[in-house]
Amino acid sequence: MGETMANLNFERAEYAQRLDGVKKRMASEGIDVLVVTEPSNMNYLTGYDAYSFYVVQAVIVALDSELPIWTGRFMDAVSAHSTTYLPADHILPYPDNYVQSAERHPMEFIGRIVADKGWGAKTLGVEMGAYYYTARSHAELQKTLPDARFKDAELLVNWVRIVKSERELEYMRAAGATTDLMVEAAKNAAHPDIRECDLASAIVEVQMKGTERFGGMPSSGAPLIMAGARANEPHPAWNDQLLGNDIPINIEMAGVCRRYHGPISRTFYLGSPPQDYRDFAARVVEGVAAALDVVKPGTTCEEVEAAWRKTIAKWGLEKEARLGYPTGIAYAPTWGERTASLRKGDLTVLEAGMVFHMMAGIWNEATGVTITQTFIVTDTGHEDLTKSPRELIVID
Amino acid sequence: MGETMANLNFERAEYAQRLDGVKKRMASEGIDVLVVTEPSNMNYLTGYDAYSFYVVQAVIVALDSELPIWTGRFMDAVSAHSTTYLPADHILPYPDNYVQSAERHPMEFIGRIVADKGWGAKTLGVEMGAYYYTARSHAELQKTLPDARFKDAELLVNWVRIVKSERELEYMRAAGATTDLMVEAAKNAAHPDIRECDLASAIVEVQMKGTERFGGMPSSGAPLIMAGARANEPHPAWNDQLLGNDIPINIEMAGVCRRYHGPISRTFYLGSPPQDYRDFAARVVEGVAAALDVVKPGTTCEEVEAAWRKTIAKWGLEKEARLGYPTGIAYAPTWGERTASLRKGDLTVLEAGMVFHMMAGIWNEATGVTITQTFIVTDTGHEDLTKSPRELIVID
Repeated sequence: MGETMANLNFERAEYAQRLDGVKKRMASEGIDVLVVTEPSNMNYLTGYDAYSFYVVQAVIVALDSELPIWTGRFMDAVSAHSTTYLPADHILPYPDNYVQSAERHPMEFIGRIVADKGWGAKTLGVEMGAYYYTARSHAELQKTLPDARFKDAELLVNWVRIVKSERELEYMRAAGATTDLMVEAAKNAAHPDIRECDLASAIVEVQMKGTERFGGMPSSGAPLIMAGARANEPHPAWNDQLLGNDIPINIEMAGVCRRYHGPISRTFYLGSPPQDYRDFAARVVEGVAAALDVVKPGTTCEEVEAAWRKTIAKWGLEKEARLGYPTGIAYAPTWGERTASLRKGDLTVLEAGMVFHMMAGIWNEATGVTITQTFIVTDTGHEDLTKSPRELIVID
Repeated sequence: MGETMANLNFERAEYAQRLDGVKKRMASEGIDVLVVTEPSNMNYLTGYDAYSFYVVQAVIVALDSELPIWTGRFMDAVSAHSTTYLPADHILPYPDNYVQSAERHPMEFIGRIVADKGWGAKTLGVEMGAYYYTARSHAELQKTLPDARFKDAELLVNWVRIVKSERELEYMRAAGATTDLMVEAAKNAAHPDIRECDLASAIVEVQMKGTERFGGMPSSGAPLIMAGARANEPHPAWNDQLLGNDIPINIEMAGVCRRYHGPISRTFYLGSPPQDYRDFAARVVEGVAAALDVVKPGTTCEEVEAAWRKTIAKWGLEKEARLGYPTGIAYAPTWGERTASLRKGDLTVLEAGMVFHMMAGIWNEATGVTITQTFIVTDTGHEDLTKSPRELIVID
């Protein structure tokens, strides 16, 4: 299988550049070896792409080794061969008796790889708060490598990911194109006499198809559909009740291309919205426009949020939650990259190539409006990643 | 919001019974307070259902408190009100400035709840290897509760979940009915001239709709579609290439009802399969039948696997991976419950009401066949949860 040509989404040179960026950060933080467990970071560095992160797996990056090592369950090694550029001797799977076993843990196996390479007494970076790096994984790795010095490197790779390349932006624009088709699908399907789950079905059908040029994929979470009385909930499951008349529906969703996400939220209204609801929506739209207006390289994240906050405050509105986050490659459970936040106190400076989802949703006790915009920071300002008009979508 | 009637999937008495089962195990293991972070366990004990587990959240069960406490992000408290039976004073959300912040961590807030209740010096059970209990969460909780004694309680709730109630089985059968519709959808859509993503679209459209009586939901992972040369990979992403002629397609997927999963895998063949491939499939089917034959209360997990192993060995076949796992409520990243395994050495004794996915897949270097069966252990034997015939599905 070492002979199989892998199907890579990027040139080898781009992966090398990413790895170089990570190694520079490792060096400056005094980390010799980085054990990467966040699935999107594993993908970013090697191309590895499989829904296998329900078992322990990792990509190991060492300063004194040119290429990383992939390690995971034996049956997934074939995906490591088919989706990464790694040579066969850098793909080191563990046997199946490590899987969900009471007697042995995959981190013992992974720790022994580190020790065998002579890195057992080095400084090891681990992603302490990453989703699939559990308390048990950490304890087992520490036990297996008693002489290593452990250092938290949770967002080290994520910070390298925040600026996208031209090729990444191409995939993200394709994801955004699918997102726009999903908005159209929702518009066409929404009707008082269908169930929430049927509306979801119509949207997801289009999400998976994608565009003619780029097929679709599942997003890190299924679309969120918040209808009627539940328009005040941000992350509920949809149900199987009829939508009914004269209700708002908030939908948050993302088209996906090669695991890159292009999120959006829109508020739909079945029937004729009361004037105060139209006003509510118009003010959210105004706030987003004001915030997008200040986006350009050199602006800080908190300045973007301040423009939004100041604008909606004119109308007596406020939003406790942050206004947005960077997005890109994603697996469950989130398409946020967890680095910068568009909020007060975040001094991250925008650079060309960054992509944020401006999550302009406001909820009150009774209801909510979400009209959001994913945008690329360009040399001079911003580019809308999705092209759906920012407006309340009325379905009469 | 404390006045809103929650929409519960089960009678209050059933939740009380579950809680009682968990408290008995806690008592026998010397655990005073259990911090439950696995989303499916949180759902099982309280009904809580939202796609919010990308932030830190927990359900806290204490022996000296009748009802559990839900804690999570402030904006998700509304879902705690609408999906659980908990009174308002048992729903304790943290403010948004805890979310993905460099300065503070939600586990400090959660630890303070424990301390404020007077449980700061008690024995605390935590789910060490659960997906969303990160190394950082554990470190922060330990830091906040220096006088507590920590004990691993990873699968404590999962083991209570392994035997399903009649009402749970009703939802699981509904999930299985959706699964069967998904098999039909795949059969109708599969064609050499469509792309893998279009086949996925046709399947997922039906998955989300579900049945007339019970709407569908997303599964813990999207369907896995492994076509042609990639039929030897177990967990790849689908792509946007045409399916083509004379290829096998393995599809693993699950219909879902109220978060309960009914998984299946089937191998489809576009064109006329060579005789050796038909034989390969027939032997997998034979192995499954032999294993199902020994299923009844009192049989051990390893005995079920042995029946399979012995049968396929006649044909020179073997499967390194375990033969299956229990399933039920699930969120990303897996619909497995992570307790028992159908494999050598697992002495778990089958009881009526247990549900397993017999994951009869065999892969070799070149290809694979997966013809699986989810089954309920009944008083006298087993019941097939899905009704799709166990056979190679040939699409000529």
